[in-house]
Amino acid sequence: MLVVMQEGAPEQQTQAVIDRLVSLGFTIHRSTGVRHTILGGVGPRDDFDPLDFELMPGVKEAHRIVSPYKLANRTFQPEGTVVDINGVRIGGGDEIVVMAGPCSVESEAQIMTAAAQVAASGARVLRGGAFKPRSSPYAFQGLAGEGLKLLRAAADAHGLLVISEVMDSSQLDLMLPYVDILQVGARNMQNFSLLKELGAVRKPVLLKRGLAATLEDLLLSAEYLLSGGNYQVLLCERGIRTFETATRNTMDLSAVPVLQKLSHLPVVADPSHGTGRRDLVAPMARASVAVGAQALLIEMHPDPTAALSDGPQSLFPQQFAELMDQLRLIAQAVGMRIAPGREA
Amino acid sequence: MLVVMQEGAPEQQTQAVIDRLVSLGFTIHRSTGVRHTILGGVGPRDDFDPLDFELMPGVKEAHRIVSPYKLANRTFQPEGTVVDINGVRIGGGDEIVVMAGPCSVESEAQIMTAAAQVAASGARVLRGGAFKPRSSPYAFQGLAGEGLKLLRAAADAHGLLVISEVMDSSQLDLMLPYVDILQVGARNMQNFSLLKELGAVRKPVLLKRGLAATLEDLLLSAEYLLSGGNYQVLLCERGIRTFETATRNTMDLSAVPVLQKLSHLPVVADPSHGTGRRDLVAPMARASVAVGAQALLIEMHPDPTAALSDGPQSLFPQQFAELMDQLRLIAQAVGMRIAPGREA
Amino acid sequence: MLVVMQEGAPEQQTQAVIDRLVSLGFTIHRSTGVRHTILGGVGPRDDFDPLDFELMPGVKEAHRIVSPYKLANRTFQPEGTVVDINGVRIGGGDEIVVMAGPCSVESEAQIMTAAAQVAASGARVLRGGAFKPRSSPYAFQGLAGEGLKLLRAAADAHGLLVISEVMDSSQLDLMLPYVDILQVGARNMQNFSLLKELGAVRKPVLLKRGLAATLEDLLLSAEYLLSGGNYQVLLCERGIRTFETATRNTMDLSAVPVLQKLSHLPVVADPSHGTGRRDLVAPMARASVAVGAQALLIEMHPDPTAALSDGPQSLFPQQFAELMDQLRLIAQAVGMRIAPGREA
Amino acid sequence: MLVVMQEGAPEQQTQAVIDRLVSLGFTIHRSTGVRHTILGGVGPRDDFDPLDFELMPGVKEAHRIVSPYKLANRTFQPEGTVVDINGVRIGGGDEIVVMAGPCSVESEAQIMTAAAQVAASGARVLRGGAFKPRSSPYAFQGLAGEGLKLLRAAADAHGLLVISEVMDSSQLDLMLPYVDILQVGARNMQNFSLLKELGAVRKPVLLKRGLAATLEDLLLSAEYLLSGGNYQVLLCERGIRTFETATRNTMDLSAVPVLQKLSHLPVVADPSHGTGRRDLVAPMARASVAVGAQALLIEMHPDPTAALSDGPQSLFPQQFAELMDQLRLIAQAVGMRIAPGREA
Repeated sequence: MLVVMQEGAPEQQTQAVIDRLVSLGFTIHRSTGVRHTILGGVGPRDDFDPLDFELMPGVKEAHRIVSPYKLANRTFQPEGTVVDINGVRIGGGDEIVVMAGPCSVESEAQIMTAAAQVAASGARVLRGGAFKPRSSPYAFQGLAGEGLKLLRAAADAHGLLVISEVMDSSQLDLMLPYVDILQVGARNMQNFSLLKELGAVRKPVLLKRGLAATLEDLLLSAEYLLSGGNYQVLLCERGIRTFETATRNTMDLSAVPVLQKLSHLPVVADPSHGTGRRDLVAPMARASVAVGAQALLIEMHPDPTAALSDGPQSLFPQQFAELMDQLRLIAQAVGMRIAPGREA
Repeated sequence: MLVVMQEGAPEQQTQAVIDRLVSLGFTIHRSTGVRHTILGGVGPRDDFDPLDFELMPGVKEAHRIVSPYKLANRTFQPEGTVVDINGVRIGGGDEIVVMAGPCSVESEAQIMTAAAQVAASGARVLRGGAFKPRSSPYAFQGLAGEGLKLLRAAADAHGLLVISEVMDSSQLDLMLPYVDILQVGARNMQNFSLLKELGAVRKPVLLKRGLAATLEDLLLSAEYLLSGGNYQVLLCERGIRTFETATRNTMDLSAVPVLQKLSHLPVVADPSHGTGRRDLVAPMARASVAVGAQALLIEMHPDPTAALSDGPQSLFPQQFAELMDQLRLIAQAVGMRIAPGREA
Repeated sequence: MLVVMQEGAPEQQTQAVIDRLVSLGFTIHRSTGVRHTILGGVGPRDDFDPLDFELMPGVKEAHRIVSPYKLANRTFQPEGTVVDINGVRIGGGDEIVVMAGPCSVESEAQIMTAAAQVAASGARVLRGGAFKPRSSPYAFQGLAGEGLKLLRAAADAHGLLVISEVMDSSQLDLMLPYVDILQVGARNMQNFSLLKELGAVRKPVLLKRGLAATLEDLLLSAEYLLSGGNYQVLLCERGIRTFETATRNTMDLSAVPVLQKLSHLPVVADPSHGTGRRDLVAPMARASVAVGAQALLIEMHPDPTAALSDGPQSLFPQQFAELMDQLRLIAQAVGMRIAPGREA
Repeated sequence: MLVVMQEGAPEQQTQAVIDRLVSLGFTIHRSTGVRHTILGGVGPRDDFDPLDFELMPGVKEAHRIVSPYKLANRTFQPEGTVVDINGVRIGGGDEIVVMAGPCSVESEAQIMTAAAQVAASGARVLRGGAFKPRSSPYAFQGLAGEGLKLLRAAADAHGLLVISEVMDSSQLDLMLPYVDILQVGARNMQNFSLLKELGAVRKPVLLKRGLAATLEDLLLSAEYLLSGGNYQVLLCERGIRTFETATRNTMDLSAVPVLQKLSHLPVVADPSHGTGRRDLVAPMARASVAVGAQALLIEMHPDPTAALSDGPQSLFPQQFAELMDQLRLIAQAVGMRIAPGREA
C-alpha cells in the first residue's frame, strides 16, 4: 500500500492516514520529500480498497502494491501450468491444441457429422453447447441432457475430448459424466456463485473473458477457481466490447502475451466469438497462433447456413480443414506445432 | 427483415436470398431501384440473425425490423408500468422513491442504525446486501441468511421496504420471506439461468444494467423476466465501463429518458455505483432527478470509513440527509416529488 | 516518482533503478519492506514516462506523483477562474450562462431569426459555425468568412456574444474580429499545433473534450493554452464514444464535478452533441444544471428539419424557450440562476 | 435510404415521410406489410442524416443504403491499390514492407545509427518524427526542419525511404523536399483542414486510425484525401482506446481484414503504438503478418532507455533484427514475403 500526500498537506492529515493504516495492521515506512510525503504500508490484509484512502483529507493518491490475485500470479508459480486431460496437454510445451465444433448440439446427425469433420481435420477437442446463454428468451436454448449424451457419443466415436458450457451450478451434476472441460461463458465470468462451485470441482475449466472485463478482472475470477482448489484453469480471450461495430466484438490479441506474462495459466484464443464473422475467423486464428496462443476454440458447423445459433461465425467444414493446414505452417514458423489428432 | 442487395448483384443471388426467406416463412416485398434491390420480409419468426443474411453473396446489409424484445416494449403497453409494493408505487405517477442503505449488512447495530437514518431522511426502501458479488475471493462475502433477518427486522422497525441482491437461484428460497424487491446485479444481468428463475417468482425485480450492456441488451434481459410471467420489473442505470478512469464507471444518465421511451418499465438511477466516489454521488443524484429517474438507489453507511465494502462510495448519514433535502427541491422543479417516508 | 520493486528483486536491479533515477536528477527515498522495496524519487523533471521504469528488470510498477498538468490544476489556483467577456461572467459566481444557436450559419435570414429567438429566450451567447468539421467530404462545409459576418451582425442586433469553432490556425485572422469565444471541437482537442496558436491569442477558448479523451487528456490540452499565456479557458463535456449506440455519444455528466475538483477552469455542458438526439437534449440540459455546469451550449435552429447540419439534435425554437423556463427552476433549486439575457 | 414505419403509424405520417423524401429528390418504393410499411428511397443526395427521419412521427428506424465513402470503397475499385514509391510497392503483391526507426529524430548520431540498423535488418523505410504531437506541452516537441534534414541524410546513406508525421498544413512546405510518405497521426485523423491540404499533395499519405474512430470514420477521412485527388493512401491500424489498461491501446487486428474487404487501399499495422509496450511488439508484429497486413510500422531506437519519446515501446536494435527473422518465416507461411531491403 502506497499513499502519496498532497503538497502542503498538514501533518495531522498525514498522521490520520498513518493511524488508519496502523489500525488495519500495516507497518509504515515514511518518506518525506520536498513536495510530497509518501507512506509505504506493508500489511497483513489485502481486502481493502485504496479508494478509501484517496478520499481522506490531504491524500493525493493511493496504490495497492500487492496484486489482488495470488494463486493465478506467475510469481506464485513461475513455470507454466500444464492442463493434462487424458494425455492432451494444454500449456507448457510446444503443442497448440485445437478445439472445434458447432455452437450448439442440434441433433445426433449434426453432432456426429461435426465430430467426424473436426477429427478428420486434426482437432483434439469437440465443442458443442447443451445449455445456451442467449440474449433473447425467444432464441434456441439448447438440448440440455440429451445434447450432452449426443456430444459425448460423437466425441468418443472419434477419439475427441469434450468441452461444453455450464451456465449454472444446478447443471453440474448432469454435465460432469459427459464433459472433459467445463466452459464458463463471457457473461458468467463474474457469476461468483458459479465460480465457487467450480472451484470445488476436479475438472478443467475454460474461463472466458467477460465483455467488459480487464485482464485483472479475468485473473481475479480465475482466483476464485484456484482458491477453491481447482488448479486446472484455462484463460480464454474472446473479444471485448468497444465502440467498433464492424465486428461483433473487438478481439484483443495482445491479451494473450499479457496474460502469459502475468499468469502461469494457459491461454486460449477464440476467434469465432472474437470477431462474430466467418470471413474473419481464419485470419484471426492465424494471428492467434502467431501471437502465441496455447489453444484455439473455433466454431465449425456441418452446415452453418442451417445452424440454430452462431451460424454467421461458424466455418464450413472445408474452410476449417484448410485453416488447420494454414495453422500448421504458422505454428512451425513460431517454433510450435498443432497437437496432432488421433485421426488426422 | 430488410435485405439490401449490393449494386449489380446478379439476379440469382437476389433469388437465393428470397428463397431462404421464403423457406423461413417470410412474405417478401421487393423494391427494385436504380442501384439497389431491397427485399422486405414479413415473417412469423424473430429468432434469426440478420448477419446470416449479410454473409450471403450479393447482400449489402440486412436489418431486423421487429424489436427483439416485445413485452418490455412501450408499443406493447403504452402506459407506464407501476410497481406497487404495499402502497409504495414506483413509476406512473409524480413520486420518486428513494432506496438507501449500506452496501452490505455487517451487524445488527450497523443495519439498525442505518435503517433509522434512512427512514429519518425520508427514504422508503432499505437496501443491504446479504450475498455479495466481489471481484476478489478474498473480500468480504456477506452474512447470508443472518444478514437477511437483520435487514428485515431493521426495515420493519422503521416502516421501510427491503431490497437485496440475489446472486444465484439457490438463494431464492432463503430470500423470499425477507425481501420485497429482488435485485439482480450488473454482473448477473445476462445470467440467463437466474433470470428464468426470477421470471417464475411473483416479487418485483430490480435489474441492473451490465457494465458492457447496451440498452437493448438490458431490455432483452428484462424480457426474460416478463416472458416468465413476472411483470414487476424495474430497470436500473448504474454506470457502464469506458476508458475513463477518473470514475469507477461512467454513468450514462441519458439512458433514463431513452429507456422510458423504449419501454414502459420504471427506471431507477444508482449514482453510487454509477460513480464509485462519495463526492460525486450527490451531484449525480441531483442530475438523476432532473433527468427524470423514477427511483434512486443510494449507498449510505452509518460510518463509511469502517464499511466492509463500498465504503468509498457510501454517503455519511448527514450527507444523505442533506442530499434528500436537495432532491426535494429539484423534484419540485421538474414537477415531481420525493415519495414521503413514514417517519420523515 | 514512485517505483515498487518486485518481491525478491535482487539488490543489483534495485540499484540499477536508483542509478537511473539519480542520473535524471532525482533524489531518492528508499523504503525496504518485508516483501517489497519502494523507491520514492523527488526530481526536477516531469517529462519522463513511468513506463520506462516499469520495463526495467525487477520493477513491479512505477507511478508519477506530480500531475502532468500544473497551470490547469486547482492546487495551482484554488479559487475558480472567472472568464469575463464584456460583463458576461462564466465561472466563479452563481450564474449559469447559456449559449445557443444553430450548428452552422446557413443564411442571413436563418441566423437573424435564430439570434432573435435565442435572445428572446434569455441566452447570452450566440453559437454558429462558419467552418464545419464534417466526417464526410461531401457534407456542407460552412460559409466561412461570409458566415462570420452574418453571425456577428445577428448577435450584435440582439446584444449577444458570439462563439464559433476554429478548425485551423489559418482561420484565426479571419475569425478574431468577429468572435468573442473561440471553440475547439472534439476532433481537434489534441491538434497541438492549433492549441499552441490559441495559447498566443488573447480571447477565451472553449475546449471540447475529445471522443476518446480522459479528463486528464483534456486538462493536458488546456495546459497547452495556459502555458502559452491564454488563461481564459472553458472546458466542455460533450459526450464520449462508448459501445452504446442508442445515443450518438455517451454524455459523461460526472465529468462536470470531477473537472471542477481537479481544475479551477469553468465547465460547460453540451447536451446537444452529448446525446445527438433532440428528444434527449432537454432532460440532459436539466441534468447538466443539476450537476453543477457553469454554462450550457445548446443547438437550436429556426427550422431543424431544414438544417444543413446537426438537424436531428437541434431544438425547435419553442422547445428551447420552454427548456429555458425549466432550467431557471432547476438552477434556483441548486442555488444558482440562469444569467439573464438583455432581451429576456 | 430505407425508412421503416412503426406498427400502426397512420397514413398521414407515412405520407409526411414520403413528401420529405420526394422534396429531397428521392424516388420512393413503398412496401406495405402486415405490420410495417417500408419506404425505400433512391436519390441523388448522400449528405443527409438518417436520424433526421428517425425523429419524424411514426418512423421506427431509418437506414442509409449507400456507403458514405465512395472512392475508398472496394466496389469503386475492385483491385487493390498499389502505392509505388521509387520501386517500393505497398499493396497488391506478395511483399510486406517494413518501416522502422525511432519515434523522434534526436541527433545526427542517433538517426544515422538507427538508419544503419534498420537497413541492416532488411527494412525499406526509415521512420522518425521531426514534429511531435505530445499530450503534455512540457514534453520534447521535436527538432523540426533540422530533424528532417538529418532524417533524409540518414535514409539516403542506406537506401531507405523516409516517412515522417505532418501535424499542420503550415509544415508541409518544409517537409515535402525531405519526405517520401507523409504520416497523419491518430489525433489528427479528423483534422479535416489538414486532410484537405493533403488531398492536394502528390505524395503518399499514411493515415492512422484515431483512438475513437470506427473503420467507417477512417475510410471517410481517407475519402477526404482521395476526393482531393491524392490516391496514394495507406490505412494504418494502431490501436483504439478501450477500458483495458494493461496496454496503452487495444490493437484491433481484425481491422486489417475488414478494411481490406471494404476498401482497395493497402493496410499497415503499427504494433508499437498498438500496444505501447516493448515486450508486446514482437508478438503483435508476428500476428500482424499472419492476419494479412501489407506493411508494418515499428519503433526501434539505438538505445531505447535514452529515448526522448516512446522509449517504452521502442525495440532494441537486436530485438528488431531477431523480429525481422521471425517475420520472414511467418510471411512465408502465409504465402507472402518481407520486401527485401537493399542492404540486407
